[in-house]
Amino acid sequence: MIIVLQSTATEENVRHILEKTEAMGLRANVSRGAERTVIGLIGPEDKLQVVPLEVFPGVERVMPVLAPYKLVSREFKGTNSEVKVGGAGVTAVAGGKHLVVMAGPCAIEGYDMLLSLAKNVKAAGANMLRGGAFKPRTSPYDFQGMGEEGLKILQAVGKEAGISTVTEVMDPRDVDLVARYADMFQIGARNMQNFSLLKEVGKARKPVLLKRGISSTIKEWLMSAEYILAQGNYDVILCERGIRTFETETRNTLDINAIPVVKLKSHLPIIVDPSHGTGKAALVGSIARAGVAAGADGVLIEVHDSPEEAWSDGVQCLTSAQFSKLMKELAAVANAVGREI
Amino acid sequence: MIIVLQSTATEENVRHILEKTEAMGLRANVSRGAERTVIGLIGPEDKLQVVPLEVFPGVERVMPVLAPYKLVSREFKGTNSEVKVGGAGVTAVAGGKHLVVMAGPCAIEGYDMLLSLAKNVKAAGANMLRGGAFKPRTSPYDFQGMGEEGLKILQAVGKEAGISTVTEVMDPRDVDLVARYADMFQIGARNMQNFSLLKEVGKARKPVLLKRGISSTIKEWLMSAEYILAQGNYDVILCERGIRTFETETRNTLDINAIPVVKLKSHLPIIVDPSHGTGKAALVGSIARAGVAAGADGVLIEVHDSPEEAWSDGVQCLTSAQFSKLMKELAAVANAVGREI
Amino acid sequence: MIIVLQSTATEENVRHILEKTEAMGLRANVSRGAERTVIGLIGPEDKLQVVPLEVFPGVERVMPVLAPYKLVSREFKGTNSEVKVGGAGVTAVAGGKHLVVMAGPCAIEGYDMLLSLAKNVKAAGANMLRGGAFKPRTSPYDFQGMGEEGLKILQAVGKEAGISTVTEVMDPRDVDLVARYADMFQIGARNMQNFSLLKEVGKARKPVLLKRGISSTIKEWLMSAEYILAQGNYDVILCERGIRTFETETRNTLDINAIPVVKLKSHLPIIVDPSHGTGKAALVGSIARAGVAAGADGVLIEVHDSPEEAWSDGVQCLTSAQFSKLMKELAAVANAVGREI
Amino acid sequence: MIIVLQSTATEENVRHILEKTEAMGLRANVSRGAERTVIGLIGPEDKLQVVPLEVFPGVERVMPVLAPYKLVSREFKGTNSEVKVGGAGVTAVAGGKHLVVMAGPCAIEGYDMLLSLAKNVKAAGANMLRGGAFKPRTSPYDFQGMGEEGLKILQAVGKEAGISTVTEVMDPRDVDLVARYADMFQIGARNMQNFSLLKEVGKARKPVLLKRGISSTIKEWLMSAEYILAQGNYDVILCERGIRTFETETRNTLDINAIPVVKLKSHLPIIVDPSHGTGKAALVGSIARAGVAAGADGVLIEVHDSPEEAWSDGVQCLTSAQFSKLMKELAAVANAVGREI
Repeated sequence: MIIVLQSTATEENVRHILEKTEAMGLRANVSRGAERTVIGLIGPEDKLQVVPLEVFPGVERVMPVLAPYKLVSREFKGTNSEVKVGGAGVTAVAGGKHLVVMAGPCAIEGYDMLLSLAKNVKAAGANMLRGGAFKPRTSPYDFQGMGEEGLKILQAVGKEAGISTVTEVMDPRDVDLVARYADMFQIGARNMQNFSLLKEVGKARKPVLLKRGISSTIKEWLMSAEYILAQGNYDVILCERGIRTFETETRNTLDINAIPVVKLKSHLPIIVDPSHGTGKAALVGSIARAGVAAGADGVLIEVHDSPEEAWSDGVQCLTSAQFSKLMKELAAVANAVGREI
Repeated sequence: MIIVLQSTATEENVRHILEKTEAMGLRANVSRGAERTVIGLIGPEDKLQVVPLEVFPGVERVMPVLAPYKLVSREFKGTNSEVKVGGAGVTAVAGGKHLVVMAGPCAIEGYDMLLSLAKNVKAAGANMLRGGAFKPRTSPYDFQGMGEEGLKILQAVGKEAGISTVTEVMDPRDVDLVARYADMFQIGARNMQNFSLLKEVGKARKPVLLKRGISSTIKEWLMSAEYILAQGNYDVILCERGIRTFETETRNTLDINAIPVVKLKSHLPIIVDPSHGTGKAALVGSIARAGVAAGADGVLIEVHDSPEEAWSDGVQCLTSAQFSKLMKELAAVANAVGREI
Repeated sequence: MIIVLQSTATEENVRHILEKTEAMGLRANVSRGAERTVIGLIGPEDKLQVVPLEVFPGVERVMPVLAPYKLVSREFKGTNSEVKVGGAGVTAVAGGKHLVVMAGPCAIEGYDMLLSLAKNVKAAGANMLRGGAFKPRTSPYDFQGMGEEGLKILQAVGKEAGISTVTEVMDPRDVDLVARYADMFQIGARNMQNFSLLKEVGKARKPVLLKRGISSTIKEWLMSAEYILAQGNYDVILCERGIRTFETETRNTLDINAIPVVKLKSHLPIIVDPSHGTGKAALVGSIARAGVAAGADGVLIEVHDSPEEAWSDGVQCLTSAQFSKLMKELAAVANAVGREI
Repeated sequence: MIIVLQSTATEENVRHILEKTEAMGLRANVSRGAERTVIGLIGPEDKLQVVPLEVFPGVERVMPVLAPYKLVSREFKGTNSEVKVGGAGVTAVAGGKHLVVMAGPCAIEGYDMLLSLAKNVKAAGANMLRGGAFKPRTSPYDFQGMGEEGLKILQAVGKEAGISTVTEVMDPRDVDLVARYADMFQIGARNMQNFSLLKEVGKARKPVLLKRGISSTIKEWLMSAEYILAQGNYDVILCERGIRTFETETRNTLDINAIPVVKLKSHLPIIVDPSHGTGKAALVGSIARAGVAAGADGVLIEVHDSPEEAWSDGVQCLTSAQFSKLMKELAAVANAVGREI
């Protein structure tokens, strides 16, 4: 932690800061320049994070030296983590050479529809099925998902088609319920800082797909992952799905830069979701290819065979045929960067 | 709802759209220009919100005509709503001529500290006491609040000092608990789109202070209020507390423009929170004055008498003395715009 | 300047940095913590700004201690600067107790129209007339301004009505021309980092109204002012007119927080432009009042008496009658915060 | 153009709008719904862009149907444009199967240094040399470029090494000068809406590399290209180099989504600049690969062999060796998406 003093700070101000911080077991290093005095504090920085040093008299700015996250950091674990999802025969692994491909409809709409899609996406190369039973909708008047009935359909289809499953959980009271039916929890962008929910999935023993909030910095995103790991659940996959900017041609701005940044800072796998990131089917292919080329460990693609009839987000869905074509393109890009599908 | 077709759209595309929308009981009005055909649909627009018209062949863009919210809109209720908080003797009213002033510490730290602050802020003119028992913290390692013990202290202090109270609820499972102790729920910025939580406080029969999410548009914010009203709870106060932008001099960018915009679009009261909005004590006074001058129905100010010892957010707190001085300044500005404190 | 090393940095890395920086006449202070080594450099920080310390082996991050601007800073000049605009009899002063009020049409459209507006706004209390002769338009097909003919009208009207004038200059080749006709240059938001233009107006001996770019941080804005002062022209007035955010209800998001931030960091006067900031006439009054309450030294308001016929930006204009009413409201708010109109 | 009326609009309001618009030769189509009346206007939309319909009594909102640009649009020209840069023997083409690769230092620092770099990047596969002689710097105290001397070096090196050249022009007065020495103008991000400059390069008969402003929408960017084409210069290459968002891990957020969006809307070639987009050498490779995978027509990469000594932006430069390695990776990705280097 580094403390920059105001140009008007007094020796009394310096003494006061030193007394307080040394009482906490920290060693201080005072540099007196012509224009500013700077105090460097050596010792456990986390002790200082709870002390509002900015309000001490004479302080202009406080600059932390260390990242606020630990368990998710590359310094804690140098090698890439691999997260295994699903039981014997249907295991998908995120973080290895083989990419993880999650595909399926935005919302579960029925058994037949989901089974047909599951077979199609698996045949095309997907190794996970996605589908929402609880839908976070901006409007209270929009379809809110099929709930437990949808979860049952997801589980049955996963078994029938031989593919592992992921679905969103929105309420800490539903964590046990969702855990009974699905192979992986999804935490949606709107709940990335729903700390009660993060703690609950942290206590569960199933992998978690943690989407980035649309206004979250990468640091905050990693802190939310830290909430889950801090509860003992190390199986977290990050998912970049777009941030909110001023640009309106796309629903969100998928932040491709987050992929190499996360790879530098964390050992956790990261995938991209170009369907929600762009909000337009015509852009999904380009951005999926870009994600793989940038080093993502996989993709999440919305697929629906009757977009005109979709109960949610039809505008960004690919059909099974479009998805199948995209998978061939992704395989070529994956090979070009030393990965495989 | 207005549908703009692509320049390459065919008559067959037009026919398909007309069939589908007329089957829903809508009347269509087709305008054929030299460069584009435009279809206007007349009838209940909410039916269309669930149909992904953008994916119909030949469609370029879909433009809604009506706002997606109803109960919160000025069209639904032309006069300003007044929200009453607290029982006999301690009632604060938001939305009338008299401004509502909520003040207190970020986190409840103990009975004596809170009582002392409650007396100070009440003496200075505040009519509500705020204090957090459940704290949403970016880091899992930061202080998470005193929980129920904090709620008990808040209730006891409210009674002793004769002031109504507001505190944050973060988890749908805690709504009943919080309702037993406090006069108003606060929904924090991070939970503005925690729809499970919104539904629970919508079912409760206590007022709700709904903070704007840092990346939420005004439209999304009003939609979140709509979630609460749709459950039958009409006592919602909106709170502008800053949005996330590229500027880093302030923690967030308090969006002063939201005040007159909300006043045009909704009948609900709106207050400003310059403490969280700016994140710096030195800026709180200017922005509180600006909020009142812009037409806000009140302010929320963090107050703590030992900022150096505050367990949370000390950097943006005013002391009781600073708060008392600010209240005099706010009274002058309130009078200048036809309001009073 | 503070250099934070990577956790993997070697003693050789440290030695290399010390050699290079000491060769520049800087004194280094090395703190070795358990997790990081930090090097503080004492001496003229500007020497370091041209050395890319981030690329030195072993360096993780470089954190400057001092602000990059000098002449515009409060540390350079503690008292508020007053900027005088216009000659004898028509002088307006920005930065004193009396607020500066600039009003007029977006574009100059003719002599009679401008004279009528000039008389109206002066009668209502404005002390400067604004009007554009060179218009920066997003589209090449939009009206680009009357050019020199417009400047002549502006000058003639200013003399006739007895009011000082401000107009935009967009091209370094036009600086002398504009200087012949107007009392103050305006640098528009799109040209805030047009450094050739900044240097030219810096060499001229007329005051400059420097609008904030829609994506500029406050620091960058002050750096652009520094460009002008560095050429010897100290008469700069800053103008906050909205930044670009995700919100679409307003054209831009007027950043009210910039007012107290600038007041802390700089001695230069600052005004607000709610007309361009919000882009909607219905919001102008609230935001103008907020600006004055927050401590602005004045306002810039677009006024036009036939908004339906305006050649540019009619949607955000007040009529003379609306402006006159607003001036009375602003006078009340000004008095409430110890200023006057 | 579609006009949505307020719910309170009167028949008199409708009549007034119809009179005005029909007087302009437009045909109106009035739809009366239960909650809103909507007026569709058929005829040349550009006539309407100069009329502020929003201020007409009873109008709530005005929604344009057509994009405001013409010459740059896909509707104007369906096939991809190819832009040729440089004379016989050194021609680079943007927009074809072969990617254009521009590489070189941020600033020209001398003949030997530039020649060495030119040979290295050409050997690695680059087909254009970049280097700045006029540098737009946030601080007036930073190195502003070598000016004409730098241009002479650039030209001499281009001839010697046999490679075409691009360099930034910042001032309309320098357009002729730059045209004498370089094969292509670069308009930097800060000058994307410097309309005087756009008009000058539009009149010149050399290709233009138009960088996107950090706060510009794609629509505004295309409008700035339209300024150049409207002057008769159709040889414009667009360059995505990052937009400003709240994220601070990268200098800007390179908007990968802009590539497929531009490809849908315009026939102009588009390249990516991951060096400025990310501001960090460690991220350049991933984002360059992503750009090519997303469909970009080329890349711009900063290369410098002594980043520690670079006079500008050393922190984001690759060395010649790193660049050479990247070119091999890019070639593999290019092949995977049907392109070549």
